[in-house]
Amino acid sequence: MSHPSIVDGWFREINDKSFPGQAFSLRVDKLLYQFKSEFQDILVFHNDVYGNVLVLDGIIQCTEKDEFAYQEMITHIPLYLHSNPKKVLVIGGGDGGVIREVLKHDCVESVTLVEIDETVIQLSKKYLPNMSCGFTNEKLTIKLVDGFQFLKDLRNQDKFDVIITDSSDPEGPAEAFFQRQYFQLLKNALSNDNGIIISQTSENIWLNVNYLQRLTETAREVFTNVKYCSTMVPSYTSGQLGLLVCTMNDQIDLTEPTRFPTTSEQSELRYYNKDIHSASFVLPKWVENDLN
Amino acid sequence: MSHPSIVDGWFREINDKSFPGQAFSLRVDKLLYQFKSEFQDILVFHNDVYGNVLVLDGIIQCTEKDEFAYQEMITHIPLYLHSNPKKVLVIGGGDGGVIREVLKHDCVESVTLVEIDETVIQLSKKYLPNMSCGFTNEKLTIKLVDGFQFLKDLRNQDKFDVIITDSSDPEGPAEAFFQRQYFQLLKNALSNDNGIIISQTSENIWLNVNYLQRLTETAREVFTNVKYCSTMVPSYTSGQLGLLVCTMNDQIDLTEPTRFPTTSEQSELRYYNKDIHSASFVLPKWVENDLN
Repeated sequence: MSHPSIVDGWFREINDKSFPGQAFSLRVDKLLYQFKSEFQDILVFHNDVYGNVLVLDGIIQCTEKDEFAYQEMITHIPLYLHSNPKKVLVIGGGDGGVIREVLKHDCVESVTLVEIDETVIQLSKKYLPNMSCGFTNEKLTIKLVDGFQFLKDLRNQDKFDVIITDSSDPEGPAEAFFQRQYFQLLKNALSNDNGIIISQTSENIWLNVNYLQRLTETAREVFTNVKYCSTMVPSYTSGQLGLLVCTMNDQIDLTEPTRFPTTSEQSELRYYNKDIHSASFVLPKWVENDLN
Repeated sequence: MSHPSIVDGWFREINDKSFPGQAFSLRVDKLLYQFKSEFQDILVFHNDVYGNVLVLDGIIQCTEKDEFAYQEMITHIPLYLHSNPKKVLVIGGGDGGVIREVLKHDCVESVTLVEIDETVIQLSKKYLPNMSCGFTNEKLTIKLVDGFQFLKDLRNQDKFDVIITDSSDPEGPAEAFFQRQYFQLLKNALSNDNGIIISQTSENIWLNVNYLQRLTETAREVFTNVKYCSTMVPSYTSGQLGLLVCTMNDQIDLTEPTRFPTTSEQSELRYYNKDIHSASFVLPKWVENDLN
């Protein structure tokens, strides 16, 4: 097996559109899988420090070592903001990591996963067993369709309390997830004004703050209460990832969880707690006015 | 000019001791300087996004684009923790970035910079003009000696309110800065129990938390009040850097600044404010017990 992103035994992530002139590399200690699906280029390899690594279209999606940082923050921020989340929708996220975290909340009665590419689910079951462990849960329904189309076709009785968009970056199949019409569809898919949505924002405050500012403004054209928070994931570009949290209820302070993890929930968390929830909304001075 | 860390026009930082199996690369848009001084290997190049980049012994020390994140946090955390810092010592930091930040505090009457390698100061004046702008300030005294030796030889009348160790990583000349004897010398060099020291910790919570735990314990053998805080610097390994803050006064809550930036000070800050001071001490759940 060989792959154009692997040279001399190293995988190199170069994203010259978003992050020109910089690259992050992981040594490929074992190449496990590569395939060009109908939707994207898929690569899985093993790195002795990071464990198994999933790459889509040349961009690292997750590694076994640090995936919990991303999965916990994108899941527990909206779920602990909602006072009683029963129905949860996850768009993208075929690796199953977000599903695993959602199912830690006993109050959740049903989770719907909308993933366009079945290959990702199959690969996760084989190579990311700690992430895909929720796929057999009876609360879960999987829809193998495009997330945008799923929302368009949604019936009035199928609304959600929390919607998590765990997409890949805004190139290729995920492009539509970063536009106004998508935020409008998300708003329509929420049960009521207390509903919370969260989206990964791709990009990075250091290298593309203008893009993030436009994205935040786009979200504010639809939602009345919007905030950007930042978390660290060491295998992502410059170790920083942003999340956009939105609701129609202006009374909700997005920087403070409404519920707190129970003792048994706490014991299953490795990254999230109420203090890091709040701290993730504190941004460096030069971006706070741009984004929050 | 050529340099062993530059291949096909890219500088690659590989630190297989601390961060095995991963690398960060910046494109070398112009190679500006390289030299092996008495103390270390020095490289300066220009990257179109990050500006001029200073590399010592193969490790990125600072880039023009993001240096303020590091300089502001390592300087303003201890200076706003101290109620009236008059005498400040900076060990390392020959690039001048910390000096520039210290001099933003009007209450500071004198700053001493102890740098072993004069070449770094000269290079900063030439290639990092925004960092070296404080070198002509009349409050500044420069000592071209080893920081460890400087502290050993310190006279009783020459004590400091704040000491900032802005060293390179614990290999080569900076190795002694991460050991118990050094913390003891720092303690002896403080004016009184209200004195504050801060050190860059090198390493990274994701990849070497055991090292950081040992370092924190070492500091606690000497200082009674020790905390680790985390900040982001996109050109450092995985974008995360830790700082260790110590004092002998147990009444000081290190997570809350004692003073706040005045309006004119605020206008000169791009990263630091009181909220990010506190937020930087909030760590992910899995490390909070290890370090704080």
